[in-house]
Amino acid sequence: THTHTHTHTHTHTHTHSHTHSQRHTQRNTYTHKGTHTQLLKTLTPEENTQCHYGLYFQDGQRRVDYVLTYHVKRPGAARHARTTSRLLTDNPLKGLAGTPSWDEQEDDKRRRREEFEKNLLDMGLELERDEDGKTPGVGFLKIHAPWNVLCREAEFMKLKMPTKKVSVVEKINSLISKVLEPLRPSVEEHKTKNIKHLSYTFSREKQHLCTKAKYSMGQSSFNLLHVLRGVCETGWLLYEEWASYSVFYKYQPIGLVRKYFGEKIGLYFAWLGLYTQMLIPASVVGVIVFLYGCATVDDNIPSMEICYPKENITMCPLCDKACSYWKLSTACATARASYLFDNPATVFFSIFMALWAAMFMEHWKRRQMRLNYEWDLTGFEEEEVSHRSDWESPYLEEKLTCRDRLPAYMTNLVMMLLMIGVTFAIVFGVILYRISTKAALHMSSNPITRSHVRLTVKTTAAILNLVVILILDEVYGAVARWLTVLEVPKTDKSFEQRLIFKTFILKFVNAFTPIIYIAFFRGRLVGRPGSYLYVFESYRMEECAHGGCLMELCIQLSITMLGKQLIQNNLFEIGVPKIKKLIRYIRSKRQAFQEEERQKRLQRYEIDHFLEPFAGLTPEYMEMIIQFGFVTLFVASFPLAPLFALLNNIIEIRLDAKKFVGELQRPVAARAKDIGIWYNLLTGVAKVAVIINAFVISFTSDFIPRLVYQYTYSNNGSMFGFVNHSLSYFNVSHFQDGKEPMDPLHLGYAVEICRYKDYREPPWSTSPYEISKEFWAVLAARLAFVIVFQNVVMLMSDVVDWLIPDIPKDISMQIHKEKILMVELFMREEHGKMQRMGSTASTGAKQKGSSNSYPPVPVARQRSMPPAHCYKPNNV
Amino acid sequence: THTHTHTHTHTHTHTHSHTHSQRHTQRNTYTHKGTHTQLLKTLTPEENTQCHYGLYFQDGQRRVDYVLTYHVKRPGAARHARTTSRLLTDNPLKGLAGTPSWDEQEDDKRRRREEFEKNLLDMGLELERDEDGKTPGVGFLKIHAPWNVLCREAEFMKLKMPTKKVSVVEKINSLISKVLEPLRPSVEEHKTKNIKHLSYTFSREKQHLCTKAKYSMGQSSFNLLHVLRGVCETGWLLYEEWASYSVFYKYQPIGLVRKYFGEKIGLYFAWLGLYTQMLIPASVVGVIVFLYGCATVDDNIPSMEICYPKENITMCPLCDKACSYWKLSTACATARASYLFDNPATVFFSIFMALWAAMFMEHWKRRQMRLNYEWDLTGFEEEEVSHRSDWESPYLEEKLTCRDRLPAYMTNLVMMLLMIGVTFAIVFGVILYRISTKAALHMSSNPITRSHVRLTVKTTAAILNLVVILILDEVYGAVARWLTVLEVPKTDKSFEQRLIFKTFILKFVNAFTPIIYIAFFRGRLVGRPGSYLYVFESYRMEECAHGGCLMELCIQLSITMLGKQLIQNNLFEIGVPKIKKLIRYIRSKRQAFQEEERQKRLQRYEIDHFLEPFAGLTPEYMEMIIQFGFVTLFVASFPLAPLFALLNNIIEIRLDAKKFVGELQRPVAARAKDIGIWYNLLTGVAKVAVIINAFVISFTSDFIPRLVYQYTYSNNGSMFGFVNHSLSYFNVSHFQDGKEPMDPLHLGYAVEICRYKDYREPPWSTSPYEISKEFWAVLAARLAFVIVFQNVVMLMSDVVDWLIPDIPKDISMQIHKEKILMVELFMREEHGKMQRMGSTASTGAKQKGSSNSYPPVPVARQRSMPPAHCYKPNNV
Repeated sequence: THTHTHTHTHTHTHTHSHTHSQRHTQRNTYTHKGTHTQLLKTLTPEENTQCHYGLYFQDGQRRVDYVLTYHVKRPGAARHARTTSRLLTDNPLKGLAGTPSWDEQEDDKRRRREEFEKNLLDMGLELERDEDGKTPGVGFLKIHAPWNVLCREAEFMKLKMPTKKVSVVEKINSLISKVLEPLRPSVEEHKTKNIKHLSYTFSREKQHLCTKAKYSMGQSSFNLLHVLRGVCETGWLLYEEWASYSVFYKYQPIGLVRKYFGEKIGLYFAWLGLYTQMLIPASVVGVIVFLYGCATVDDNIPSMEICYPKENITMCPLCDKACSYWKLSTACATARASYLFDNPATVFFSIFMALWAAMFMEHWKRRQMRLNYEWDLTGFEEEEVSHRSDWESPYLEEKLTCRDRLPAYMTNLVMMLLMIGVTFAIVFGVILYRISTKAALHMSSNPITRSHVRLTVKTTAAILNLVVILILDEVYGAVARWLTVLEVPKTDKSFEQRLIFKTFILKFVNAFTPIIYIAFFRGRLVGRPGSYLYVFESYRMEECAHGGCLMELCIQLSITMLGKQLIQNNLFEIGVPKIKKLIRYIRSKRQAFQEEERQKRLQRYEIDHFLEPFAGLTPEYMEMIIQFGFVTLFVASFPLAPLFALLNNIIEIRLDAKKFVGELQRPVAARAKDIGIWYNLLTGVAKVAVIINAFVISFTSDFIPRLVYQYTYSNNGSMFGFVNHSLSYFNVSHFQDGKEPMDPLHLGYAVEICRYKDYREPPWSTSPYEISKEFWAVLAARLAFVIVFQNVVMLMSDVVDWLIPDIPKDISMQIHKEKILMVELFMREEHGKMQRMGSTASTGAKQKGSSNSYPPVPVARQRSMPPAHCYKPNNV
Repeated sequence: THTHTHTHTHTHTHTHSHTHSQRHTQRNTYTHKGTHTQLLKTLTPEENTQCHYGLYFQDGQRRVDYVLTYHVKRPGAARHARTTSRLLTDNPLKGLAGTPSWDEQEDDKRRRREEFEKNLLDMGLELERDEDGKTPGVGFLKIHAPWNVLCREAEFMKLKMPTKKVSVVEKINSLISKVLEPLRPSVEEHKTKNIKHLSYTFSREKQHLCTKAKYSMGQSSFNLLHVLRGVCETGWLLYEEWASYSVFYKYQPIGLVRKYFGEKIGLYFAWLGLYTQMLIPASVVGVIVFLYGCATVDDNIPSMEICYPKENITMCPLCDKACSYWKLSTACATARASYLFDNPATVFFSIFMALWAAMFMEHWKRRQMRLNYEWDLTGFEEEEVSHRSDWESPYLEEKLTCRDRLPAYMTNLVMMLLMIGVTFAIVFGVILYRISTKAALHMSSNPITRSHVRLTVKTTAAILNLVVILILDEVYGAVARWLTVLEVPKTDKSFEQRLIFKTFILKFVNAFTPIIYIAFFRGRLVGRPGSYLYVFESYRMEECAHGGCLMELCIQLSITMLGKQLIQNNLFEIGVPKIKKLIRYIRSKRQAFQEEERQKRLQRYEIDHFLEPFAGLTPEYMEMIIQFGFVTLFVASFPLAPLFALLNNIIEIRLDAKKFVGELQRPVAARAKDIGIWYNLLTGVAKVAVIINAFVISFTSDFIPRLVYQYTYSNNGSMFGFVNHSLSYFNVSHFQDGKEPMDPLHLGYAVEICRYKDYREPPWSTSPYEISKEFWAVLAARLAFVIVFQNVVMLMSDVVDWLIPDIPKDISMQIHKEKILMVELFMREEHGKMQRMGSTASTGAKQKGSSNSYPPVPVARQRSMPPAHCYKPNNV
């Protein structure tokens, strides 16, 4: 094709020494326009070579760079006979003025459209209209950006262009490189990685143009459909080497992803990739910690004491009347299981995970820096202010004062609090369900029911919780969007940020409230035998099984995490788009056309029209950040969380890739230097994780009481006697009337003193059942641990942050080297020029002569001014 | 003058619409070369107009831009007859080759110098040598940078130039502006502030050249003396409107400071100014808190109880044998004074100050952003890597492996620990001094001595502490430098950072160890009556006066802070440079010349040679950051700290200004976008401040015990009975043998039970003198307070950080506006060009024709390429 060849040869003239494979890559980079890859699935390889159908204007010469769609309302159902397409470039106004006017609203829309089209033409773009395609009711406006427009915009955006080939310092050992070889995707990009190519990215330019046009004409009645950019190979490569489960163990071809989807999506996948990679060491350590627990469970003295039947400790009943006394040794299995998640290694692991989070953030900063360098974004500054393109908000043009905004802000605040209140209420509801069901089942006369009480209640409650979380998640997403629209943010960026922030808070509260309840409140508000706490005056608050609430926390965590991942992420993500696509097909089927026949004759952009439009990266990031919360926040109680996250993410990457390549309309490429607000949210989660883990270790687990016992109360410094020490005494004659067990002889003997887990004075003390000195000592130790843990971990994170430089050494060296090269090049040019000018300039005594004899344009401008090469050479 | 006029007119042509005053400012900005202002002090106004003497080459045309000095060793003492100066520009090598060679080393130096000079000439600089000036033994090499060199460098550095006048949005209300008018310095810059001028800063360029020259020739035997830049007025204005105590209440003319000294020093003074400004609200609130304490001291129940003589509490002796029992009511004055610094308002104040610190950091970020915008640094990226210019390190060119560096790192670590150990040891020494002197004085038979014991010991100890801090500060500065040289950092920046970091740690530890001792350790390790803790088996550890150690902490803080500020900063900073200057004069007096006569005939640069060279901003910043530490770290115990800091800083700004303008050689202007590592150190101090204040409130003050008493132990929720509750009982028969007071009847009655401040069981309990339940409860409350305080304050700081945008709204609006303006300008140019080209391009159907008919240089390049205007116009 004409344009194509030109670009290619042009590149060639400036990169003489490139190898063939490299030139190939360069060409791909130059012609940055690719067709939507959804099509490629239905094309056989030979069809692929013909994949230009629908990608050119009627003249077969000019490429379609961008397609706009709009709704066409026909006068009646009769098909209007017109020329199928018109060249609007020659005299656009005349061409458009000829069409007859229908109803008022339609007319208004059309006028706006015309104004918009005129703006586009003023920009130098070339348009072609296709209203009579095979998709009735939809008009297509194909846009072609000629070379000179591209050049102008590239120049204006200060895009960099290759001036010289720079070989990157080969830093990776060739042996390591060989070992990692099978992990690399079979994409040529990686083979030429040690040579930096500065590329022409034209992606944003069209978007930018459109944005500018929007300023001058307010709202547009066009829907931005998608950009068609013409490298079939990129799509194919991505489809084969990225969006496939069979390459799950390989690195992602991030360079290609960025080339095809733009920097913003490229950064998302790079981030996801790094996160997944970083999860590997975390999972390994987590599994080791878990295995350590399994291996040492038999050496654990407290659980030994519990299981040793000779100790014969009689415990107080777990519920009023229906329950009776029980032997501590029956809790043996739970105690042993608890130890798996409540051993000294978990403390180490939560410190490790806090540092891991800090390392992850640091590594991401470095990776981002590296990508910025490789993608030539170092000079690019993100536009801070850009008006909202949303036509839903009617006040777009007006300036809103604080007073105008106050009601919206108040609504926001109230609604947010209300939503959080709803979450709390639902969690409380589930608790009530659990308490009441348990009480009811305990009353049951059926012995099988009674024996399965615990399991039944736990399972149903956990499922109930999960379902509620899943439903509320969807509700909250909608509420957050509605609230943000109410606020009428001034810019798109601000809209996105506020929406993300609200959604994040709501979803986070939703996901973690039940877990926080179990970790910090359950089993703490029970009161004591003889004076239990009652909800609604009849239900006793829940207690944890012996061995702390850590076990329950762990179960709840794993159910929520796995359930969310399996159902919400994977099922919803695959299922919903498929269903939506089906609905679209069915809807359009009411036309008389045979689906298959139509498919054949449809233009590329008409097929893409049926795909789900790209809705932004927010859901993807949100899913991952909630997962990051599961991985870091309660890691002290569930060391296997990183492993589950890792397994999920390995699938998630390819799932997302498949979705982007095959299920969605190709998104407009957007430039971005960083992942924006998500980074701040990640940092926030990592910070909160430190304090939550500190509290989990010191308050949920028995770590601190054990330590205190061992170092202050134990006779010989061992843990023997801990169980006995941690249980208080209760004289059964002190039960309130009507609360004592109905079957006091259940154990076969009369009980006088039963035991319960708390630090209280014994009945024979001067102040029976009052909180004992031990309680305060243990509490002080717990709090001291929180302070020490939090500050030590924060200090260590800061040290990690400080030790790892934000800019990788090789990149900073490279930037420095490039600068020196530029200086040298610059000075050489200058010198040559001086010599050519002769001795007039170099005498230097007379300034006037020297400064004036320069040619008007110095050669040394090359760098700051890419377009010097941009004018398409004619002689090649 | 020739050049001057040229520049001026040049500017004029591009800023047609400027008013006169503005053009004036513009000119100042353009001709960025100024003479050292030290001279101006000795010049009368009419002499001032002739201040060009010594500022030009022999031809009287070319300005001296930079002067290099070097040591000249004459053959014998005889004066060598040569031409006083030579033009080296014509044939530099020949001119230099003619000089005879002396001894080997001198020859080597000369050869290097020649190589360096040749490099300078290659760069296009013009040189003139002056070896036979009136200062024997010193050679001067004057450098002139011609216009074309400046242009080339400006271009290369991507300096921005004024393209269009942009009027900044008038955001300040005119009324406010009028009120603030007397606070503004009488400098024209402020009047034209609402019009942005993008200026040509040539300052860094020479430095850059020199840096580059250094690469190619290794080390240079030149000393960079200073830059002479020729605007006398700027110097004068600064001298009058800035470096004077009479304008202490005005804003600083930061724009002028930056123009004269460069961005780096400008940023320092901007930072210092903002810090001082921010100290005003802090001081006001501090004084209010202090006054609140004064006003409510009579309502304070604990001190009332102490002062009420009827309570009649007998306290245990404060030292062994020599001391006897004492009445609590004698501690009345101390208790009342303590209350001034230990009341609920201090808790509020420390939260306020933590938020103040966060606000300060945020405001600084904004101010920095604003300055970056005003000074056109938005695009400028700091050079990360630049080789060290220090010729002290012999390994400069070699690459050092980790193994080579290990000994140095180990030395560093060991020395740092040793130095910190020395600080601890000295603090311990002072404690011992205090204990032993007190014991000795108590033994004294002289009753006057005995009655003044406390005062004498306290005063001498505090002075001792201060002297030690002052001496160690100097020692530590030297040690840090030595250690950093040992490390052989690769770059200048890294050298500076490492040096700063080490100095900071050592000085911080030095300044705050005695204070931390008093706050957290004093009075805590005393043991209890009957089983006191002894140092060296004979000295009892110190106790605090009744009312907590807060009072002592406050005294120590104020002495250290005031002493450091008065003696170290002001006395040293003014005195030492004056003395050094005197010494230099005396040394040069051994020459036969009459000082005064010489002075008259001396060139400007020869006089400046006797000034102290500029040693960097590190000492200035360090002083301020230590002060920031005093203001934030222990603010809970000393609410007047901000006031003292404010008073000091008002003087400090003008003192520093005087020093920079008059006492130091004019520093080479350096570009900088931020204050670098100092920002991180400030953030670090602010973070540490939160936790330290939390501990001061909960552990040093009696805030928490009072709260616990009020809400759990008090009968009626009031504070009555607190003093009694906080004192434990001791049976005097339980004193160890030989430790009981020699004079048990000192109070006039026999004592059976004495009281001491602690939470321990009474003698009649089952476990006498053991730590009581109250102790643990209070400890838990204290620790809980620390956790809550730290996390709440950190959260609030984060919220402040998040609420205040980093970029001021008007600046981001302005940047956006500028971008739009540029787009419009750009498109208009493009459009005009298109129209000129006729219809060939606009048909658009045939691409080939359209793209080829462009002129080789589009007009639209203006923006990315300042030098288009840079070639000096000849026709104006």
